[in-house]
Amino acid sequence: MASTLNVKEGTGNQSSWDTLLPDFPKGPLCRYRQKASFNWKEMAMFLYGEDIIHFKNRIFSALESDPLFAHHPGEDLCREKYQELTFLRCKRLFEYEFLTQQEIIENPVKTCHLSTCIGMYDWSLSLQYFLHCGVFGGSVLSAYMRFADILKQVHNMEIFGCFALTELSHGTNTKGIRTTATFDPSTQEFIINTPDFEAAKFWVGNMGKHATHAVVYAQLYTPDGQCQGLHSFLVQIRDTKTLLPMPGVMVGDIGKKIGLNGLDNGFAMFHNVRIPKENIVNTAGDITAEGKYSSSIKDVKARFSAALGSLSTGRIMITTMSSTNLKLVLSIAIRFSAVRHQFGPTDDEEIPILEYQTQQWRLLPYLAATYALDYFSLSLFENYVEFYAGLLTKQRSQRQAELGREIHALSAASKPLASWTAQQAAQECREACGGHGYLAMNRLGEIRNDNDPNCTYEGDNNVLLQQTSNYLMSWMKCIKDKAPLESPFGTINFLQDYHRISGWKFTAITVEDCMDSSVPLAAYKWLVCYLLQESDLKLSKEKQSGRSDFEAKNNCQVYHCRSLAIAFIEHTVLQRYHDYTHDPSIPSTLQPVLRNLSALYGLWSLSKHLAVLYQGGYASGEHAGKFIQNAILELCYRLKDDAVALVDVFAPPDFILNSPIGAATGELYKNIWGEMLQGSKALNRPSWWAEFCISKPVTGRLRSRL
Amino acid sequence: MASTLNVKEGTGNQSSWDTLLPDFPKGPLCRYRQKASFNWKEMAMFLYGEDIIHFKNRIFSALESDPLFAHHPGEDLCREKYQELTFLRCKRLFEYEFLTQQEIIENPVKTCHLSTCIGMYDWSLSLQYFLHCGVFGGSVLSAYMRFADILKQVHNMEIFGCFALTELSHGTNTKGIRTTATFDPSTQEFIINTPDFEAAKFWVGNMGKHATHAVVYAQLYTPDGQCQGLHSFLVQIRDTKTLLPMPGVMVGDIGKKIGLNGLDNGFAMFHNVRIPKENIVNTAGDITAEGKYSSSIKDVKARFSAALGSLSTGRIMITTMSSTNLKLVLSIAIRFSAVRHQFGPTDDEEIPILEYQTQQWRLLPYLAATYALDYFSLSLFENYVEFYAGLLTKQRSQRQAELGREIHALSAASKPLASWTAQQAAQECREACGGHGYLAMNRLGEIRNDNDPNCTYEGDNNVLLQQTSNYLMSWMKCIKDKAPLESPFGTINFLQDYHRISGWKFTAITVEDCMDSSVPLAAYKWLVCYLLQESDLKLSKEKQSGRSDFEAKNNCQVYHCRSLAIAFIEHTVLQRYHDYTHDPSIPSTLQPVLRNLSALYGLWSLSKHLAVLYQGGYASGEHAGKFIQNAILELCYRLKDDAVALVDVFAPPDFILNSPIGAATGELYKNIWGEMLQGSKALNRPSWWAEFCISKPVTGRLRSRL
Repeated sequence: MASTLNVKEGTGNQSSWDTLLPDFPKGPLCRYRQKASFNWKEMAMFLYGEDIIHFKNRIFSALESDPLFAHHPGEDLCREKYQELTFLRCKRLFEYEFLTQQEIIENPVKTCHLSTCIGMYDWSLSLQYFLHCGVFGGSVLSAYMRFADILKQVHNMEIFGCFALTELSHGTNTKGIRTTATFDPSTQEFIINTPDFEAAKFWVGNMGKHATHAVVYAQLYTPDGQCQGLHSFLVQIRDTKTLLPMPGVMVGDIGKKIGLNGLDNGFAMFHNVRIPKENIVNTAGDITAEGKYSSSIKDVKARFSAALGSLSTGRIMITTMSSTNLKLVLSIAIRFSAVRHQFGPTDDEEIPILEYQTQQWRLLPYLAATYALDYFSLSLFENYVEFYAGLLTKQRSQRQAELGREIHALSAASKPLASWTAQQAAQECREACGGHGYLAMNRLGEIRNDNDPNCTYEGDNNVLLQQTSNYLMSWMKCIKDKAPLESPFGTINFLQDYHRISGWKFTAITVEDCMDSSVPLAAYKWLVCYLLQESDLKLSKEKQSGRSDFEAKNNCQVYHCRSLAIAFIEHTVLQRYHDYTHDPSIPSTLQPVLRNLSALYGLWSLSKHLAVLYQGGYASGEHAGKFIQNAILELCYRLKDDAVALVDVFAPPDFILNSPIGAATGELYKNIWGEMLQGSKALNRPSWWAEFCISKPVTGRLRSRL
Repeated sequence: MASTLNVKEGTGNQSSWDTLLPDFPKGPLCRYRQKASFNWKEMAMFLYGEDIIHFKNRIFSALESDPLFAHHPGEDLCREKYQELTFLRCKRLFEYEFLTQQEIIENPVKTCHLSTCIGMYDWSLSLQYFLHCGVFGGSVLSAYMRFADILKQVHNMEIFGCFALTELSHGTNTKGIRTTATFDPSTQEFIINTPDFEAAKFWVGNMGKHATHAVVYAQLYTPDGQCQGLHSFLVQIRDTKTLLPMPGVMVGDIGKKIGLNGLDNGFAMFHNVRIPKENIVNTAGDITAEGKYSSSIKDVKARFSAALGSLSTGRIMITTMSSTNLKLVLSIAIRFSAVRHQFGPTDDEEIPILEYQTQQWRLLPYLAATYALDYFSLSLFENYVEFYAGLLTKQRSQRQAELGREIHALSAASKPLASWTAQQAAQECREACGGHGYLAMNRLGEIRNDNDPNCTYEGDNNVLLQQTSNYLMSWMKCIKDKAPLESPFGTINFLQDYHRISGWKFTAITVEDCMDSSVPLAAYKWLVCYLLQESDLKLSKEKQSGRSDFEAKNNCQVYHCRSLAIAFIEHTVLQRYHDYTHDPSIPSTLQPVLRNLSALYGLWSLSKHLAVLYQGGYASGEHAGKFIQNAILELCYRLKDDAVALVDVFAPPDFILNSPIGAATGELYKNIWGEMLQGSKALNRPSWWAEFCISKPVTGRLRSRL
């Protein structure tokens, strides 16, 4: 990522570019490639740097060269076979060991790139691997002294892990978890129990078929009958020698999902399963031999938050995963649009569909969003690394607490923004590729289906947004008191000027005025202030009318707190991308196109709030709306010739993208046709042909039964 | 549908209701059912009438009682088996013969209900059946004297048919079709030829495995080398005794799709395949024995339109299919939301998620849309029956031409509106059911995936909308000349008042004022007039700046013609539903809830155009927007207790809905748990267990290969 790189080092020279980023083979896409305003290799080197590109190339080429990862065109893999194959591939990832522990410590962002490179190939595989190493491994890492052996076994795959929080009847509302862990002083054990099937652990990735160990969240009960709140425990669920369930554990696979079917999501019920006292995972809470509870965090609510700390990682990873999905679907849809010819000025002459205003407007704003969110997700990961370092070194400073609150507010909104943007983009790309987008081989459906749970797990998007608006609302007191206000990453610092910003108006007087991201950025600052004020007013009104806090807050979500959280995170993404693209250190060869992307992302996102801009008096008259709309269309037009080169920058190799219509040459029809003929029995007569030819139906024979 | 029914006859009495619509079994959903403001049975009887409900019950119960249609929980059907099963079930439909030809003539709307009842069970099956009987059968019906034998064979399944228009490189742009049909006077045959694989027929439903005959669209060439334009021809593609391809035909299956995998979509290439002269299907165009072309329609463009006439049927059917999908996904999500408890005012007390403002706002507008679009799709079908009767009786009146234009404009916009609404609703319902919505067994993914092609086939949604805006723009001359303007179905009659309407303003001064659909209806009239004016201005400007007609039109789509077509069809749907729900003949017991639905649908649809209302000066100030938003939230709140009863009205029996979380009792956890444990090998150790237990990876073994 550029912000951590010396620009010169990052971009290198032409010959290093060609080694790392070979030219694409000739083909129909050349026409657009030649029209690009910039060199895609320079852009890639500038954005990611030599080291990361080299790292990605190694991963991609290892997968491509290994028959275990080969694609089998036209194969209709059943779920069981897909699970088996995913597991075998996961094992193989251990053997490749693309990253050592030392390398992770040196450059933690490489874990992101590893996860997304594998994810570009197959998300089920990436999730299986990271749920084991990252989520399960990361959980026990928090008490690494006690679990040193376990960690070694994680690393060698002697055990296989999963993270068991969600239950059949409770997910996002983690306080409702009903599994219990009761301490028995007589044996110095915890007894893990599931009261009934509605409290069965459910949805747990890796639990369906493979996991031998689980980090299980349960309500801790001390011998005095007191509930001490949610804690996590290490529980062995399957025998490592046989993969059969441990006594008292009923464990299985929850069945087919809309996507991610290579991953074995599972359920488990515990019938008074005993585990040693040492298997409590939380470092914040512990228990004495007599069963007395003690915690370094006194307040139950604060303890609860600490126990869930490890969930922030997930939301940041999902932000990155979603922006990766944007890269995949845009690569496919833009390359398709550049070579699919349809209609034209005369009956004889057809033009690429990318030349149509509608197609540009459907796709190019998502391309801009891909760039902005890609940059944002990596910058958020950097923020997280800073926070996590403090966590590992047990910082208890005010700043560490502030870091935690801000990172929580950011990730709780960036996950919804990124996952929804990717979901909508996948659908739009699917439709924009017409029937060919609906062919499974072209992969848009798979990506959409695999992206879908990003909207749900690690906290439902709509519920999560409340975390962010709560954080923002918490600053209202400072604002009203005109007290200073500042956050570690500075994302709310502009609220210092709340009173001044609230008086701002839309001032552009030509379309050209709107062509820079400073225009939507200013509008967003006003928008956040306006929605903050409106949400605050609404909440007071609800409370004044006698509603409980709970009711009042619920009644302030739609058009208020929810919009506020969305506007805030869009502002944050845009602010960072605006600053980045306007930095003087950006090569002059790249700056124009990057600024166009920044402006398009900002205006297009803002256009969804246009009614509020009018409603609140920021905009008035016919021109404001028209300027914004015309600027969006003009930016789409300016970017259309750069679009293919812009996806070349981030598209993975054809083997990884695995989409005939998205291949780098642009030979879409040859690719579809070739892959189709590889299909199992594509040209064969159906095995049930006699059901048509011999055994004819007698029309109306069963009508009397009706 | 009520408009064709005597209200009294339609609603019947309590005892007839109970026979046709038995009570639901007791369960958690009772609580909401008791809170409903109306009797769901009375509503069902009023909306659909005894005859249609009885007809649907017969279909549903036949499928439920027949083991061939049984569900196999947890079964992971591969695509080939699914295709086979679909075919066997399709055969069985012939044996049930739910509708005779006579019954169809007596009440054509029953074909809609048959198609959607089967579709509620499985769209692949419904499409296979109707592509054969309706689309293929309907095409040859237009020349039924010549094809009397063929029609009999269609009816007995001696042959199996498909409709082959789309090619690999051309779909929505049907003028680009490149298959040729060259007349050879020496043998009195047409020679059907595919010039290259890019012109292969592609996507053809039923062609993949089963079809023996195809209606093939091709460019007709006379012996003088002249191209006479697109015509359709009956071509045998497989031997009826063996299901092997006919000589010169290369035919096969295109492979897996995102959904609808029970249906065998296929491709075909023709290598100079000869068919008798009589096999030309078009009635408009014909050829003499010497090879001289004659057509009853002189103009080539008009001939082209006539040749594609049969495509209107498809768009109207898709409108109905989409509104059926709305019924399915809303039934599932609303029942789930009424029994899923999560969070609450205290930690001990959880409330149904339907009680949350956000959940109401996410789902209830789609429920209102379901009612409005259901009514609209049936009314559009009635319009179509009127048009089709004229077609069959070869009416050549001015009115028949006007009917054709209007029905084309309506179906070209209702298909996009309905298919997109269903697509968005399916996604929202999927997310609103959280993780359980992502479980395949709950069926939201299948419905979304099966609905998806509705956005694409029979014309890409975005391209189709241009047909509607062209129609609307064609009235601008009348408007400018203040000439009278009127259409057979009256959908554009309000444009008569264009100049007066253009001066209208938003006048509501309280939220309560907005609670009737007359408010959004008036706003829509203004909106259509405004967008019409804006589109017209934009087009003139583009042309003045020297752009060709083609370019100028393309540059007027986004924010102009496209929005115009959408606003117009939403206006039409709302106008019809408003008139319907405000009719004095509606029982007073049902009118309040129906009017709430009408108001909610209108306001919610309108709210997406709010920025334009401000931009164009229809609305101004903070209140307009707030009134609309508050009215939407208030209507959601008023409808929440009716929501379960409202889905009870249209939800099919549990066997058909086939969704554990959508079952009529509301026992969601028991249903999920029960179905999960039926899953194949849910509790079994994986067959590849030794891959974990014995054969361990050597971490880093392959690192040196990188």
